[in-house]
Amino acid sequence: MADTKFIYYFGDGKAEGDASMKEMLGGKGANLAEMTNLGIPVPPGFTIATDVCDAFYKNNRQYPAGMKDELAATLGKLETMMGKKLGDPNDPLLVSVRSGAAVSMPGMMDTILNLGMNDKAVEGLASITGNPRFAWDAYRRFIQMFSNVALGMDMNVFEDILEEMKKDKGVEVDNELSADDLKELVHLYKIAFKGNQNKDFPQDPMEQLQASIDAVFGSWNNPKAEKYRNINGIKNLKGTAVNVQSMVFGNFGDDSGTGVCFSRDPSTGENVFYGEYLMNAQGEDVVAGIRTPEKLSKLASENEEMYGQLVAFKERLETHYRDMQDMEFTIQQGTLYILQTRGGKRTGASAVKIAVDMTREGLISKEEAMFRVDADQLDQLFHPMIDPASKKNLNTLAKGLNASPGAASGKIVFSADEAELWVEKGELKVLLVRKETSPDDIGGMNVAQGILTSTGGMTSHAAVVARGMGRPCVAGCKDVVISGKTMKVKGKIFNEGDWITIDGTTGEVFEGQVETIAPEMSIELIDYLAWADDIRLADERVGLAQKGFLVRTNADLPEDAKLARELGAEGIGLCRTEHMFFEGGKLEHFQQMIVADTLEGRKKALEKILDLQTADFKGIFKAMSGLPVTVRLLDPPLHEFVPQTAGDISAIAKMAGISAKELEEKIESLHEHNPMLGHRGCRLGITYPEIYDMQVEAIITAAVECDSEGDEVLPEIMIPLIGTWQELKILRDNAEAVIAKVFEKTGKKVDYKIGTMIEIPRAALTADEVAEHADFFSFGTNDLTQMTFGFSRDDAGSFLPAYISQGILEKDPTASLDQTGVGKLVAMAANLGRSVKPDLKLGICGEHGGDPSSIDFCYRTNLNYVSCSPFRVPIARHAAAQAVLNNKK
Amino acid sequence: MADTKFIYYFGDGKAEGDASMKEMLGGKGANLAEMTNLGIPVPPGFTIATDVCDAFYKNNRQYPAGMKDELAATLGKLETMMGKKLGDPNDPLLVSVRSGAAVSMPGMMDTILNLGMNDKAVEGLASITGNPRFAWDAYRRFIQMFSNVALGMDMNVFEDILEEMKKDKGVEVDNELSADDLKELVHLYKIAFKGNQNKDFPQDPMEQLQASIDAVFGSWNNPKAEKYRNINGIKNLKGTAVNVQSMVFGNFGDDSGTGVCFSRDPSTGENVFYGEYLMNAQGEDVVAGIRTPEKLSKLASENEEMYGQLVAFKERLETHYRDMQDMEFTIQQGTLYILQTRGGKRTGASAVKIAVDMTREGLISKEEAMFRVDADQLDQLFHPMIDPASKKNLNTLAKGLNASPGAASGKIVFSADEAELWVEKGELKVLLVRKETSPDDIGGMNVAQGILTSTGGMTSHAAVVARGMGRPCVAGCKDVVISGKTMKVKGKIFNEGDWITIDGTTGEVFEGQVETIAPEMSIELIDYLAWADDIRLADERVGLAQKGFLVRTNADLPEDAKLARELGAEGIGLCRTEHMFFEGGKLEHFQQMIVADTLEGRKKALEKILDLQTADFKGIFKAMSGLPVTVRLLDPPLHEFVPQTAGDISAIAKMAGISAKELEEKIESLHEHNPMLGHRGCRLGITYPEIYDMQVEAIITAAVECDSEGDEVLPEIMIPLIGTWQELKILRDNAEAVIAKVFEKTGKKVDYKIGTMIEIPRAALTADEVAEHADFFSFGTNDLTQMTFGFSRDDAGSFLPAYISQGILEKDPTASLDQTGVGKLVAMAANLGRSVKPDLKLGICGEHGGDPSSIDFCYRTNLNYVSCSPFRVPIARHAAAQAVLNNKK
Repeated sequence: MADTKFIYYFGDGKAEGDASMKEMLGGKGANLAEMTNLGIPVPPGFTIATDVCDAFYKNNRQYPAGMKDELAATLGKLETMMGKKLGDPNDPLLVSVRSGAAVSMPGMMDTILNLGMNDKAVEGLASITGNPRFAWDAYRRFIQMFSNVALGMDMNVFEDILEEMKKDKGVEVDNELSADDLKELVHLYKIAFKGNQNKDFPQDPMEQLQASIDAVFGSWNNPKAEKYRNINGIKNLKGTAVNVQSMVFGNFGDDSGTGVCFSRDPSTGENVFYGEYLMNAQGEDVVAGIRTPEKLSKLASENEEMYGQLVAFKERLETHYRDMQDMEFTIQQGTLYILQTRGGKRTGASAVKIAVDMTREGLISKEEAMFRVDADQLDQLFHPMIDPASKKNLNTLAKGLNASPGAASGKIVFSADEAELWVEKGELKVLLVRKETSPDDIGGMNVAQGILTSTGGMTSHAAVVARGMGRPCVAGCKDVVISGKTMKVKGKIFNEGDWITIDGTTGEVFEGQVETIAPEMSIELIDYLAWADDIRLADERVGLAQKGFLVRTNADLPEDAKLARELGAEGIGLCRTEHMFFEGGKLEHFQQMIVADTLEGRKKALEKILDLQTADFKGIFKAMSGLPVTVRLLDPPLHEFVPQTAGDISAIAKMAGISAKELEEKIESLHEHNPMLGHRGCRLGITYPEIYDMQVEAIITAAVECDSEGDEVLPEIMIPLIGTWQELKILRDNAEAVIAKVFEKTGKKVDYKIGTMIEIPRAALTADEVAEHADFFSFGTNDLTQMTFGFSRDDAGSFLPAYISQGILEKDPTASLDQTGVGKLVAMAANLGRSVKPDLKLGICGEHGGDPSSIDFCYRTNLNYVSCSPFRVPIARHAAAQAVLNNKK
Repeated sequence: MADTKFIYYFGDGKAEGDASMKEMLGGKGANLAEMTNLGIPVPPGFTIATDVCDAFYKNNRQYPAGMKDELAATLGKLETMMGKKLGDPNDPLLVSVRSGAAVSMPGMMDTILNLGMNDKAVEGLASITGNPRFAWDAYRRFIQMFSNVALGMDMNVFEDILEEMKKDKGVEVDNELSADDLKELVHLYKIAFKGNQNKDFPQDPMEQLQASIDAVFGSWNNPKAEKYRNINGIKNLKGTAVNVQSMVFGNFGDDSGTGVCFSRDPSTGENVFYGEYLMNAQGEDVVAGIRTPEKLSKLASENEEMYGQLVAFKERLETHYRDMQDMEFTIQQGTLYILQTRGGKRTGASAVKIAVDMTREGLISKEEAMFRVDADQLDQLFHPMIDPASKKNLNTLAKGLNASPGAASGKIVFSADEAELWVEKGELKVLLVRKETSPDDIGGMNVAQGILTSTGGMTSHAAVVARGMGRPCVAGCKDVVISGKTMKVKGKIFNEGDWITIDGTTGEVFEGQVETIAPEMSIELIDYLAWADDIRLADERVGLAQKGFLVRTNADLPEDAKLARELGAEGIGLCRTEHMFFEGGKLEHFQQMIVADTLEGRKKALEKILDLQTADFKGIFKAMSGLPVTVRLLDPPLHEFVPQTAGDISAIAKMAGISAKELEEKIESLHEHNPMLGHRGCRLGITYPEIYDMQVEAIITAAVECDSEGDEVLPEIMIPLIGTWQELKILRDNAEAVIAKVFEKTGKKVDYKIGTMIEIPRAALTADEVAEHADFFSFGTNDLTQMTFGFSRDDAGSFLPAYISQGILEKDPTASLDQTGVGKLVAMAANLGRSVKPDLKLGICGEHGGDPSSIDFCYRTNLNYVSCSPFRVPIARHAAAQAVLNNKK
């Protein structure tokens, strides 16, 4: 370990690290080094590598040997370069201490500014700068941050003292306090510190530095950091790095300031320089959203030179990084410093626009563009928005900043904990309302439909995190006054549990629940998805009969099919027929069928459904003319269709000519202990062949009629829940007999396929046998997952959260395919099936068909298509293109 | 096809076939040929091969070209040899037509005797024999059989005419009727025939023969034949052969007779010649049990010469076939003929005794002996018998023939259909009471606990079939008078649904339900199983660390463990701990634990169970000292333990200090949609680690204490329902922490293993990962089967019968392991597990562990042991030896 380098210096245009060393220096440290090398004015400093964090935890929170010597030496180098010394009573060096892991975790790791400050240094600083106000302000901020971050003291202790003083002095904002006020404040802070910590505030800068480094490393494993990594699936990092950097000050006076800027608009993606700043303030003031900052355009007019430099730097950085940059800057007495740059978080719309624009500008290739937007961002673009029709009639309750786009309705809750609690209890639609959010609120923000804050700007915590999560957010809505579990807006009181709606795209807030609709697609989005289509449709996989990696949809109704087609679906992968039974008077007849004791009676009841069902299928076939439509025959157990209420029971009993008691007994006899593992799917087809016969007749009759009417129909009949080839053979034979009759009766023929869902483990294990009787397989990974894991989605709620939090499962396997276990079955079935039938068509129709990592798996497993819900189709098109590219590498 | 030989002649000491040609000639035909070749006096005839039956069905019930010519030619050969011609009005040849497939199916295929009889032949026969009574009796029998068997007429039509005539003439039995009476009977039969068939009774013998052959082939696929094959798992046969054989007559007068005999006693296996006969009767009279026959010992005294010949033939046949023979013989006017020989059906006790005796006699080897007893026969020997203690106090209600051993209690039903109906409805214990049984009753006999008949002998249909099935049977119990749905025994009336008990070992019938106990083992049985043990324990499989193929038991209580050990168990493969919670006051505490809202509360409740549970385990360990004991940690979901009644709910609520309503809400919150797929097994261990901690502490504390007390303990802790290696790692770590504490506390250590049940498909699929954390795998094939098939045993009743009858499944996969699908997972898991841990111990503890074909699979899959319920242990020991021998071949 003695030869290992722990600390990397940067400063004066030269750095020991660079942007490629993110894993070791963290994103922040690597970029500080890179910027230094680029000649961007970065305050000098050094980065303690993530290796140290790793060693720290592996070695029972002890630092590796040699680290402290290297720290002293590097600090010495910094002091030499800066011409100042830490704690120097005349001209003290002040530094910041920040965390920075390889993956950005905004707000999660803690920061300490102005380190090096003490009773002597403050005087030196006051004297050398001639600005005692500044010096004392820096000191009081340091006490506050150090006590809170390094020692875990409650921030409110200091906030309360500050608030009281402001009230005493009759001022509104901090920077109205005078130097003497601040000196008094420091005095009071130190008293509070001693009261809390039982010792004086540490005066030794090395002690301060060490405690701060300890705190940064310690914060790597604090609960909120762990929670963030959990929610965002961040794994396998060594830890955080620590960046120690000489301070520059935006609060040096009115010729100083600080800001945050983006090289393009992170909300819209437009190629305009975008940002916010505050004069005479430290960075924390902007990010925390305590004071509402100014737009960057104001700087252009107020300080042309600074603005020009800033524009030049942002252009150099964007071109260098070939991506939209999120930068922090500070102006200290007219000198501009860049404190940080990183890839900017962006909304879905902006991600698409930036990717498309940058491709057109020649900055990146189309293939690279495919990885500049992620699925969650894309998803935002298909999130419901408020229906413009209903919006005309709405009165806006209040307006805030349009911090994260999309519309959301929900019941108000006033804390993140409540949000989580309500959702756990099954109250899924909650809307989190806060004065401002903090990293502690991540969990609640994640479960909420949307977030509304009363303070804070576009770069406030709430805004940044909500954009990252794709949650609609209206921030800084000043008309909202929160007090306990009520909120007052323009005199009107709202209580916990009341409905409100926010539109994060416009910043509007509305009372109650408001109708939402699907949004329109931007030209860039249409182009972007067309590029994705080009990539996935041109793909040829070795040994695969068909070209391309297709996307179908799961749709049961003509209107859903139409929507999905507009969103790019290339057919229907799953049309469930059971929903049809609940519509258009079919349920009564189907209930009659269930009640009937004889085959005759059942057939009579089914005959009444036949025409209605035929009409259903015609609607679907017409909506999908020219594209394949996979229709699944009836799947749920019969007891899902029986009448529930006493009134319905007596009505149905009357129709059936039996007593209500007899019907109740019949219903009781249909009860199952484990309905998921019961009498359903093809088991119904075996025991009541007349049901499937009716459905097949309806499908083929509809297909023949559509064909006659000029539609191109490609019906695929899918038999669910097959566990043995024998079931499929019997049901296929039955279906073909019915089809032959329809062809004979109508004198017409259409092409058709008969296949099965692979959703029972046994079917996957014996897929070679099953494939002999199937034209296609569609993996029903919902049931396959539940049976392979041996848990039902309905019941897993009692233990699945513990499974995720204890790391037993990385992700909920019902949401993202378990590639190790369930995936092994899928791959086995695909290979066994193709071993006997090389051109067997393979698809997936479980909900995993819309999940990007599952889609990548499906590509690798040589599936021909994925099928997902209509709104996931664009995400699947994109993920399919990514899969093609990923696996070309 | 022209060159194919369809018909095989036998007669005059030479036959075209032999015993090895069973598949082509059927068992009966092959043995007739073999006996002919051996010089046994067999009436000449010929066999139409099973190929013809196969061709008949494959060719839409048409015979292959050339068959009819060959039939005519072979018949001519027979006529020449016999010096008689079919239908000759002076000296007619009469023949029998019988079915005979490769596998014996007693009573299932139909027989026609006396074929060739017509209005002229009867006169010729009367004149040439000088016995008109015999001739007319033969004719009326032929009309009866031919009409019924070949043309499907109701037998009762003729029986009623016969009964009426007997009443008219004032006689009790058929052979008291005179020649004229019988002539009149033929007249009446022919009138009845014409009335039913609308044509005269056929007079052309060739027409009779062809119709009879058609009937035999036609009967191959009749429902009762199919049912028999279904129940007995008989598959892949070509069909039946037809045996046409010249008639000999036991009803020729008092110097004639017919009988059935066994070369050893089929009930006990004793090497004594055993049989029954009737003088002046045809074979049907003996088998059908209409007249009660005489014991063979009587023949020895009454006709020493005939008896001597019979003994000589049976000895030649037994030595030749090296197995106990079941023979039919006829004496015609002092000449002895053997009509049939076959391996005799036998009880379990006799099968074992015969196998052991024959081995000792040097007739067969020990290895051959292993295949002379099947699992069902062995099972009979462990069937409960009436407890001798309670028997002393019982009054015998009636006594019949001890037709099939074992005791059974059940509710009376009076038809086979009712028996099936009751069992389907869940009334599992029915006892079938019939005057006599017929092949139509097979289904009902199979589901009944036992069978009681009022007529018929030891070789009656009921007796033979019951022995084959291992059902207790009391036959020919004359005191039982059946009328409609009541039975009268010595004046006492019993109605449908009343309980009775039969003892098939003694022939006794008792009123009500009687206590039964396990039977004692015979010396032969003990030896036989010891030979099985020698074979399986000496076995060495390639690549397996341990020698032998072991048998453990599933036992939850010390008394079960003790019993199983006596029956040969080599350890416990599954000790379920859940049953323990319902005993000895533990349930209340466990309910308190479930109700408790805090970890503290749960721990407090569990502490109260700890000592009680420790005592449970000590009992088990002591019963199994020196042998391994696998203890499964708690498996069922918590809702199985909650109080059910209002009274219990309020009591438990009171103890817990909450309201009944709160407890009801708690209970409601534990409800699951699919309990099989719910919060149970190791999922409880993850969410409530304190439960498993308590159980592990109890197990190891018990082990340490037993060890101190001189017992040799080999505890194996089994964690159920593992789906991921992560679960097992966490729970293993937890368990080892508890174990370390117990060792520390007691200052003692014992060896232990920690492993898992493989019962979730995912665990099998990822068994290499799981094996890293397991010392052993035990395949829980009950759940594994249900999850692999995606059906629950509780719910499959609504469709599984249709699945079996439609041939979708060969057998119920919950009873016999589905080797294709579930077996593939088991084999995969075994191979994956051993790939990372070559000495991984593998066993099975599902109910399949007691099923012979599953045991064979387990052997082939390289499992170290099987585990089954105590009473199945001997069957498993035997099946394990068979598996070793089968796979050596």
